[in-house]
Order: sequence, then C-alpha cells, then structure tokens
Amino acid sequence: MSALEAIRRRITAEKFDSSRTLSEQDILELIEYATHAPSSFNQQHWRFVAAVRPEDKARLTRIAYNQTKVSDASVTFIVLGDLRAHERLGEVLSRSVAAGVLDQSTADVWVAMAGRMYADPRDARDEAVRSASLAAMTLMLAAESKGLVSGPLTSFDPDLLIKEFDIPERYVPVMLLPVGYPDFGNGPKKARLKAFEVLRFGSGRGL
Amino acid sequence: MSALEAIRRRITAEKFDSSRTLSEQDILELIEYATHAPSSFNQQHWRFVAAVRPEDKARLTRIAYNQTKVSDASVTFIVLGDLRAHERLGEVLSRSVAAGVLDQSTADVWVAMAGRMYADPRDARDEAVRSASLAAMTLMLAAESKGLVSGPLTSFDPDLLIKEFDIPERYVPVMLLPVGYPDFGNGPKKARLKAFEVLRFGSGRGL
Repeated sequence: MSALEAIRRRITAEKFDSSRTLSEQDILELIEYATHAPSSFNQQHWRFVAAVRPEDKARLTRIAYNQTKVSDASVTFIVLGDLRAHERLGEVLSRSVAAGVLDQSTADVWVAMAGRMYADPRDARDEAVRSASLAAMTLMLAAESKGLVSGPLTSFDPDLLIKEFDIPERYVPVMLLPVGYPDFGNGPKKARLKAFEVLRFGSGRGL
Repeated sequence: MSALEAIRRRITAEKFDSSRTLSEQDILELIEYATHAPSSFNQQHWRFVAAVRPEDKARLTRIAYNQTKVSDASVTFIVLGDLRAHERLGEVLSRSVAAGVLDQSTADVWVAMAGRMYADPRDARDEAVRSASLAAMTLMLAAESKGLVSGPLTSFDPDLLIKEFDIPERYVPVMLLPVGYPDFGNGPKKARLKAFEVLRFGSGRGL
C-alpha cells in the first residue's frame, strides 16, 4: 500500500475483530517500524507496553473508562514518553557511534546540549509527548499498510494506569493504541478542516 | 512509494537543495495530507505557518539559532498546536454533522466532555503537542513518498518565534519542519534502540 493511500485510508477504528490475534513477531515488527520516527538529538523517548492477554486487556479497558475497543483489539499498546531521556542520551548515542554514523565528539556535544535544553521539566515533558506521538503515528501507518486498523485514545486514567501496569515514574503515558483487524461498523473518517483554513504564509495572523 | 518503504527511508535531512522551490499548490497538498491525522474528539489542534519567501526563511533561521536548513529548504513549516481547541470544537464538528458522518447529539456530548477534559492547562497542552506531532509525522511521510525530504527541529526560541511571526497566544509552537529536495550529505539514519529494548508485555517493569 502506498504511503499516500495509507494516510488517506487510515481511520480511528472503534470496532475490532476480537477473534483474531497478532503474534509476538507481528508486534515486534510494528514496534520496529515505530522506532524509525525522528526525535530531538535521537533521544528516542518512546517506550511501549503491549497488552495482549485477556486479563491485561480487561484491566486496561477499565482504566480507559470501559472503551471496549481496548479489549477487542488484538493488542493495545500503552505508548509512553521518557521524561528523562536526556539522562541516558550518551548510552543511546553510543549505538550510532559504534555504527559509524556519528562522531564521538558530536555525541558529546549533543549530550551537553540536551542536558541544558531539558533541565526545565515542561520542556522535557513536551519533548517526551512529541517523540512518543511521532512514533505512534508511524506505527499507525505501518499497521494500516499491513491491513490492520488502529484506534488511538487519550481518554484514560493516567494515575491508575501507572499503578496497575507498574509504569516507572520517569514515563508519561501519551496514548493507548489498540491495533488489530477491523470488524464491521468503522468509519467513515470525520470531516477535516480544509488545508487553506489551517495554513497561513509568512505570518500567524488570522489563524 | 509504499508506506513501509517511506517509513524506513525517511531521515532527518540537514542538507536541502536551496535552488528548488515548491508551489503553493504543492504546499497545500502536503498540509491536506497532514490533516488526515487523528486527534482527540477530532479537535484538529494543528495549524501551520509556511515560510517560503527568502526574508521569512531568514528571520526563521535566526530564531532557530542559525540552523541553515531552515533557509535552504523550499518551505519551512512552523507547526502549531491549539491550546484552546476544545473551545471551538462545536464549530469543527459541525462539518462532520453536515457531512452526515456524526450525529448532532454525539457532537454535543463530545463538546461537553472535551470542555471538562481540557480545563486543566497541562492536559490541554499535552493534547495540543500530541495532535500537532501526529500531523507533522503524517506530513513527513507524505513528503517522503513524493520524493521530498524533511528535517524536523525543536531547537528554536519560542518566544521570539511567537513575536516575529505574529502567532496568536492560543498556540504552542510544536516544531519547525523544513521540507524540500535533498542535497548531498544527508544520512544515514542514526542507530535506533531495538524493538525488544523499548517494548514490554503486560507490565512496564524494567523499562
């Protein structure tokens, strides 16, 4: 499926075929595509917890105010953003240095810059949400191109999620992302504002 | 280009061919693809200011600490997120009601729910950053599939940006997104953490 077709076809699914499963290999492959997203200084804030077992999906459904798609999907990902990604940037960039795609001296400069840029917790949180969202969108389009559908949601109890799924305190929950096979009753896509309504040239006046 | 190939090929470009331009129609088409992204209650927090004229790109380059790709790209988008999108949700959803893809009663419930959910400014900011990022990722993959490259960056002076580009106070700047034709010297992609390193099943322990 072409990228442009995947973008046009993707909808936020509400109905999933609860009889179909995805293998651990399928799930790892979706995550591998998600990690192709960009992130500031290549910090890779994204982390994922996959709920696949019925009991895990049931717990997660309650945390999401009983939105049944969380259970019906083959897998529901908890998408997390690392609020302290800058603290482990040196280790992350060592992979690129080892692969010969980044100089150690550049890596050292990036680690120092990131340490300054994300000292403010609000900036660190914005970046964590941003990177995790870029990865989630990439995952949704990878899923679409594989004949799957996705149904992102941000309406859930974050405190209960953190407690019930043992999420370390360094992470902010960014969204829940059910992925699986479609059942009847999805779509069509909701109407979008037109490009000329959301775009200005040279100035933000009138937006 | 297939979606999976676009995801794999996309890099954060540093080098753009500054001799090549994109038409207003090309730019509108990229934005149209970006608006296919999902957003909570279909709030569509994303807005864009396109810097195309040399003088606008020069101003924006200074705001981005002299990262020359901002000027070299055919267009650099200022990607914005609406901190008060819930306040105009009724008008936005009226498009879907008119198109026959949403009931008025559901729209009314969504407007009331969103009003409650985003009363907390931090939640509203998280959602604005999240939606704008989903749109930006969609735009990057649309660009890739059209033979263009993109070079997102979050290192810029947001206060100066807001002042210089007359950005209304309701918006948070989410990223700058140069898009254009590649010049020599880009890539390869930096090394990514492996899928098994960023994924757990059933619990966040050990992440």
